[in-house]
Amino acid sequence: MRILGIDPGLRVTGFGVIDKEGAVLRYVASGCIRANAKARLPERIRTLFVGVGEVMARYAPDEAVAEKVFVNVNPHSTLLLGQARGAVIAALVAGNLPVAEYTALQIKQAVVGQGKAAKRQVEHMVMRLLNLSGAPQADASDALSAAICHAHAGLGGMAKRIEALKTS
Amino acid sequence: MRILGIDPGLRVTGFGVIDKEGAVLRYVASGCIRANAKARLPERIRTLFVGVGEVMARYAPDEAVAEKVFVNVNPHSTLLLGQARGAVIAALVAGNLPVAEYTALQIKQAVVGQGKAAKRQVEHMVMRLLNLSGAPQADASDALSAAICHAHAGLGGMAKRIEALKTS
Repeated sequence: MRILGIDPGLRVTGFGVIDKEGAVLRYVASGCIRANAKARLPERIRTLFVGVGEVMARYAPDEAVAEKVFVNVNPHSTLLLGQARGAVIAALVAGNLPVAEYTALQIKQAVVGQGKAAKRQVEHMVMRLLNLSGAPQADASDALSAAICHAHAGLGGMAKRIEALKTS
Repeated sequence: MRILGIDPGLRVTGFGVIDKEGAVLRYVASGCIRANAKARLPERIRTLFVGVGEVMARYAPDEAVAEKVFVNVNPHSTLLLGQARGAVIAALVAGNLPVAEYTALQIKQAVVGQGKAAKRQVEHMVMRLLNLSGAPQADASDALSAAICHAHAGLGGMAKRIEALKTS
């Protein structure tokens, strides 16, 4: 099963694609979709919608995961983030992908084993779980974490495997 | 020119279609897209995206208008509204429609002649400007107001015509 993880944002949207073969996870691709911060909102949404569509066309994922976003201290930012997330999910459902949602807490729990893990810990575990030689971009790493979390949701032995990796 | 106005919401999204022939505005259609409030968010976004697509396919508008939304006192509602608006705009740009945006203030100004008009005043003017015998649903009326505002943006004589109607 191929999973597309998305970390939505109106300036930068990260994506990460992994394959789940039994209990093994394999890195396929990751990257960022960048919208012109000076463009009008409909234009930025178009960039996001088309960009997610291109990622789906290129990697043909079976399922998608979008991190649940939280209200920001700045209500204006919350509104912008909401619009980005709405456009991303619209692109995913327009491509007939089932879309799962997890909170940041659930994702950290799945990747690091505890919900209050620091960002660098999460990045480190993403690299180890996917056998990456270098760290992906921050937004792409978050998207890969979400994909790993979704893979984990269907993998009973995943938690143990993570434990084994952490203590190895 | 045919204009599609949209009043986005995650539970109810209003739409209104008008034709602008010179200085004359003609009502074409209006209605609401309703999403199941108990469904998961991706499912609600799918309903919205598909619904806006169907309206576009049916009425073939040349341009679209979406009201600019405001931050709510409840940040959670702001986030939901943002996601609905993002999905609606994604549907419009996916259909290659140019999307204009106006604030509620600009829309009231264009329809009633003053930005602090009461909702009922706006509904009343929508009925008069479009020669409607009955009041459209509230969300559809807001969508028609947005469409009228956009038509007005390209109509120099509109403000005067509204003045004439108001004093008639």
